[in-house]
Amino acid sequence: MRIAHVAPLYERVPPRLYGGTERVVSHLVEEQVRRGWDVTLFASGDSRTGASLVAPVPRALRLDVGAVDQLAPHVVELSQVFDRAGDFDLVHCHVDYLAFPFSRLVATPTVHTLHGRLDLPHTRAVLGHFDDVPLVSISDAQRRPVQDIALTWAGTVHHGLPLDAYPVGAGRGGYLAFLGRISPEKRPDLAIRAARRAGLPLRIAAKVDAVDRAYFEEEIEPLLADPLVEYLGEIGDAEKPAFLGEAAALLFPIDWPEPFGLVMIEALACGTPVIARRCGSVPEVISPGRTGFIADTVDDLTQAIRRLDRIDRAACRREAEVRFSVTRMADGYESVYERLEAGAELA
Amino acid sequence: MRIAHVAPLYERVPPRLYGGTERVVSHLVEEQVRRGWDVTLFASGDSRTGASLVAPVPRALRLDVGAVDQLAPHVVELSQVFDRAGDFDLVHCHVDYLAFPFSRLVATPTVHTLHGRLDLPHTRAVLGHFDDVPLVSISDAQRRPVQDIALTWAGTVHHGLPLDAYPVGAGRGGYLAFLGRISPEKRPDLAIRAARRAGLPLRIAAKVDAVDRAYFEEEIEPLLADPLVEYLGEIGDAEKPAFLGEAAALLFPIDWPEPFGLVMIEALACGTPVIARRCGSVPEVISPGRTGFIADTVDDLTQAIRRLDRIDRAACRREAEVRFSVTRMADGYESVYERLEAGAELA
Repeated sequence: MRIAHVAPLYERVPPRLYGGTERVVSHLVEEQVRRGWDVTLFASGDSRTGASLVAPVPRALRLDVGAVDQLAPHVVELSQVFDRAGDFDLVHCHVDYLAFPFSRLVATPTVHTLHGRLDLPHTRAVLGHFDDVPLVSISDAQRRPVQDIALTWAGTVHHGLPLDAYPVGAGRGGYLAFLGRISPEKRPDLAIRAARRAGLPLRIAAKVDAVDRAYFEEEIEPLLADPLVEYLGEIGDAEKPAFLGEAAALLFPIDWPEPFGLVMIEALACGTPVIARRCGSVPEVISPGRTGFIADTVDDLTQAIRRLDRIDRAACRREAEVRFSVTRMADGYESVYERLEAGAELA
Repeated sequence: MRIAHVAPLYERVPPRLYGGTERVVSHLVEEQVRRGWDVTLFASGDSRTGASLVAPVPRALRLDVGAVDQLAPHVVELSQVFDRAGDFDLVHCHVDYLAFPFSRLVATPTVHTLHGRLDLPHTRAVLGHFDDVPLVSISDAQRRPVQDIALTWAGTVHHGLPLDAYPVGAGRGGYLAFLGRISPEKRPDLAIRAARRAGLPLRIAAKVDAVDRAYFEEEIEPLLADPLVEYLGEIGDAEKPAFLGEAAALLFPIDWPEPFGLVMIEALACGTPVIARRCGSVPEVISPGRTGFIADTVDDLTQAIRRLDRIDRAACRREAEVRFSVTRMADGYESVYERLEAGAELA
């Protein structure tokens, strides 16, 4: 099986720090390499992979201060892929609608995993135009905003992790964890309020994008004065397992239709339960009372924190092993590829 | 000859107000329709054309407040064009590098007029990757920043105007004109300073983009207090000929590598000389002492204003008729198309 993966160029594969899509691409690519497939990865030149790397740019765009135009490198990347589409049995794209037109112009079967939200106005128009292009959703919930459009869904494949890289922690650090990005739709303010009310320390490991700088300074920084709250900045892969594994729970009080929420399964893999709000994929990922709690208000979140002793950390890890391993994700994509190739042969 | 034109979707074709690229596309399309060609125009749905219109969006994006993502409609547009490339003898794109990859994936000859500046860092990388894609420059000067890269230039075609729409004015309004966009690289401040020093009124007809709002408020608005300076806001096509034709001269003291500068030939067509700084295409368009002056400092610009009586307005109009008519532009593109089709037949 000769397969090309087309990754976004914003972060290297895998990312050094934050970066969900590029991390998932890395997990999938390395598992396919392990299975002996002939994998070509199109990604930034600082990526680390066992696949053949083709690099449209030497460095990931987010860390390259000279990269003013972020679209042009992606256009070059798509040309590099589709000029030689015949070299591959299948092309697997992770760059959103930008690659859709090429699906129709080459004979090689092409599939697109949608990593983003689908509830924005332009998304409906663009998906509607490409209703014959094979798509993979990363949760069933992700499809909901466009469920009235007849699209060509090739499947839902939940993200999966290489579980060896996420050792189970004891959860004895005596703190709650918030991990990811400081932005209004992630509701770090709710996490802080619930932790304070429960009287437990909260450790925040998160990046602040330029677009969220004002929100951070006006809404969140004043809340950091509380001695219960500690802001660590952005952390790397090496620190993440200990950060998650020693936490009593991950707080994930989001306020947007999260298409998957990779950090939830990272927490489960480390044996750490998740307390989340009922948005997007959350009910698909978390089983209330078994691997965490789903709560809405600060009151509910606080109640959930107080009931954490009812959760068995071993059950959280087991859930990750059964439902969210990289093996299971790669099997899921293998089924998708088989259906696409069968379809291409029929056509 | 079945030809497809691919216009940007930011403005309708032709634009209601500001908008160089969409205006030039309109001029070329209508002249080709007049010549009896089978022309299909891909453009926003509010466009006015004698060609067959295919509209990826109902309204131009700049005036559509709901249009948050401006890339997605262009991706749909490119798909609409290239899915049916076989319906055309030639595809003529005006949407910059976004359409480059498709040139290699379809059998129909495809040519790209570059309407923007080529001196930005990302431009070199993206052009270098597409060195076999046929390009048209809108001035020889436009190519200068990339002259060390071996690209496939199919020609330079200067813009042209339907001269009937630009009647010659008497130039008796007793004012100088500034027309276009308020932004640092257009140097409206220099225009104001030179007009004040020459003691002549300056009328400014220009839009202010959101990105230039702070520049306008901080640098330009304070200068508008002078009774010699009048700010008219953005004007439409109907007002333009009188605005230009009654002016003593157009001031065009730019500070960037202007790839063409449509307003210069609009002024010439109205019989109005142009006083411009030596940037980009200016020396290709203006003949000093005959159709205007090229000047650098406020002193030089002021001197030029004082020598305007040496310019024969009829000579300005003649220059537009000989070098900058839509007939001449359409002839220029016809030569380009013939060479491309001959090349495609040889290949």
